[in-house]
Amino acid sequence: MPANPLRIGIAGLGTVGAATLAIAQKKAVSIAQSSGRDVQVIAVSARDKNKKRECDTSKIKFVSDAVQLANDADIDVVVELIGGADGIAYTLVKTALENKKSVVTANKALIAKHGIELAAIAEKNNVTLAFEAAVAGGIPVLKTLRQGLAANRISRVTGILNGTCNYILTNMWQHKRSFADMLAEAQKLGYAEADPTFDVDGIDTAHKLAILASLAFGAAPELDAISIEGIRQITLADMQFADELGYAIKLLGIAQASNGAILQRVHPAMVAKNSALANVHGVFNAVQIEGDSVGSLFLEGRGAGGDPTASAVVADIIDIARNTAGDAFGRATQHISKAKIAPLSELKSSYYVRLSVIDKPGVLADITSVFRDAGISLKSFLQHGHAPNETVSVVVATHEAREADMQKALATIAAQSSVKEPPLSIRIEE
Amino acid sequence: MPANPLRIGIAGLGTVGAATLAIAQKKAVSIAQSSGRDVQVIAVSARDKNKKRECDTSKIKFVSDAVQLANDADIDVVVELIGGADGIAYTLVKTALENKKSVVTANKALIAKHGIELAAIAEKNNVTLAFEAAVAGGIPVLKTLRQGLAANRISRVTGILNGTCNYILTNMWQHKRSFADMLAEAQKLGYAEADPTFDVDGIDTAHKLAILASLAFGAAPELDAISIEGIRQITLADMQFADELGYAIKLLGIAQASNGAILQRVHPAMVAKNSALANVHGVFNAVQIEGDSVGSLFLEGRGAGGDPTASAVVADIIDIARNTAGDAFGRATQHISKAKIAPLSELKSSYYVRLSVIDKPGVLADITSVFRDAGISLKSFLQHGHAPNETVSVVVATHEAREADMQKALATIAAQSSVKEPPLSIRIEE
Repeated sequence: MPANPLRIGIAGLGTVGAATLAIAQKKAVSIAQSSGRDVQVIAVSARDKNKKRECDTSKIKFVSDAVQLANDADIDVVVELIGGADGIAYTLVKTALENKKSVVTANKALIAKHGIELAAIAEKNNVTLAFEAAVAGGIPVLKTLRQGLAANRISRVTGILNGTCNYILTNMWQHKRSFADMLAEAQKLGYAEADPTFDVDGIDTAHKLAILASLAFGAAPELDAISIEGIRQITLADMQFADELGYAIKLLGIAQASNGAILQRVHPAMVAKNSALANVHGVFNAVQIEGDSVGSLFLEGRGAGGDPTASAVVADIIDIARNTAGDAFGRATQHISKAKIAPLSELKSSYYVRLSVIDKPGVLADITSVFRDAGISLKSFLQHGHAPNETVSVVVATHEAREADMQKALATIAAQSSVKEPPLSIRIEE
Repeated sequence: MPANPLRIGIAGLGTVGAATLAIAQKKAVSIAQSSGRDVQVIAVSARDKNKKRECDTSKIKFVSDAVQLANDADIDVVVELIGGADGIAYTLVKTALENKKSVVTANKALIAKHGIELAAIAEKNNVTLAFEAAVAGGIPVLKTLRQGLAANRISRVTGILNGTCNYILTNMWQHKRSFADMLAEAQKLGYAEADPTFDVDGIDTAHKLAILASLAFGAAPELDAISIEGIRQITLADMQFADELGYAIKLLGIAQASNGAILQRVHPAMVAKNSALANVHGVFNAVQIEGDSVGSLFLEGRGAGGDPTASAVVADIIDIARNTAGDAFGRATQHISKAKIAPLSELKSSYYVRLSVIDKPGVLADITSVFRDAGISLKSFLQHGHAPNETVSVVVATHEAREADMQKALATIAAQSSVKEPPLSIRIEE
């Protein structure tokens, strides 16, 4: 065992930072045994030195400027838990790697935007950049893609990657409440931010998907390549129709190989009620991976929260102590290509479409003829109740169709006078 | 990238060996990119050189004595796919490690019996011993325990680890057929051996559990510490009663921390129908891990078959090429203790008990009084049909009870004259 301990500096003492420090202190002996050397947190940085926390910082150097950690000759590894794609987090991580310190981060926005640039610096300086905690919290899905499935050509990765959205969707259905109600409750419980945009509009999922896709396909993360829809437009009525059709509604991030390119998308989707993804409840996350040798692999666990995320952060630190982390993106950056992007319009999918229409003779014929003219064949039709000359919801489920054809059909339908609201479509993932 | 390739010798060209060779050949470029160096299979060993296989051995050295691979100066890594706890497999692996070659094996019996001894030799010689493929086929559960969850104190590991048993149990229920029928079908399909003992009597599961427990608890694998029951006694009637009570029947391997000791067991168990484990169907495997930081983590995938198992073998080879494998058991062998063993009698569990009794007044009172006297409280009682003075099946489900008390109660009940067959009990895992 090397006599010198691995010395850690943690930037950011929020929930994850405090949990990371607590684990490092409480489990020092077993971490040393796993690592083959002692691991010591010797410095921390946070906005407020005196805030009460669930960890003991009394014997640890405190610096108010996080970037100081990157310039501290006593520190071997910088743990960045500040967040944000740019600003201090970027400066800190880049400076640390340039100063030949390894870096562990949970910052998905940073890695999705600057990951390859930072990995190249790490590579040049023979240090580690690790970010297991950035995707799916405690689920070691990046290690799984990087190591466990290294022999596979991956054809598809599908994830429930945002605990807030999954909590809202799960509870809307279980308690038969509206999106707005459940969002308010999630905010009260601390599962959603005061400004929930990042979560409910799918942006957080997209950051994580970009990183997952990058490791799965050996391509650079590219946020701009992802089509993103959130869950604000999902109603309880859609969940009831979905249930009737045999589905549950989840916010998915999906990256799939498509004719030599990668198609990446984040949107609510219907998944079969008896599928593993449909049974991921509450704040849990899950990732389903299709590999040519392994077949289908499914991972489910806690995707957020202090302890599960810190579990991933400390695992990365132990990897660095053991010197077993490997390349950040699973291969040298010279072998990471810019992905060829498949546009969403190329997608083939089945669709659920909900329409608000005037309940009068001929309306259904008008609508079905639009689908027929677009070459889209229908699988099911549902209407609840009957209200002559009033507005009613009707739902159609289609067989597989081209996204481009579907969007054209929806635009045509939306323009009909008997259609009272923009049609809502949800893709069905069989 | 090192100019010299990593040179591999494969011992055993059965399903897994042939798939390993095929992957190594077909994906040479991407494996080199992931590994940072070329990986070449330069020698193979098999019983029959001329057997037709799904891989190209024409340009590869063939040796008839596998142990030659361990003595071949040109070979860096020996891949052992012969099987068996002792014999050639043991000699080959030990000799290879002693000759400073790394070893990859899928041999659960070997690792469960000799793993620590072999890991110590690897450690001394600074080479790698890796055996991801030995447990749960393509699911990288050992890497997950060793690396992804390295920061966790594990309290429990529960696995569906034998695809043959899971195939039989799944299909008994789906097709309403007997154990004997489904075993015969599994044999016809090649999912079960001509001698199915290893699979259906739980021994294969126990080998895998011993290895899982070892990595989870930092203790040496100890096959003798595991209580083992197989699935031969499970009837369709039990599945019907289980369904009525809200459960499915699975063969589980369970290792759990119990007052500073480890309790390890393999037996059929009832799990809630809506649980993740209950929804693992057919030949799939799954592992559920409880860690103090991560909470519950669930992994599901293909546990057997050529390609999924080879996926794990090649991942281990890539780890060796990258030099990122780490200690075989997650820490240096000096830190691996002999586990303190908790006997099964200490288990607390709920139970399902099926009795064949004469349908006459007073019988139920006789039985329930035995449970009462043993301090075991009952939760449900089921009887199908009514046949005065004939033998009928009655089922009771208990609240949590001590295993020792339950065994005593079952012995007392078995001795009653109105009880016509030995009672069948199945533990309920909530």
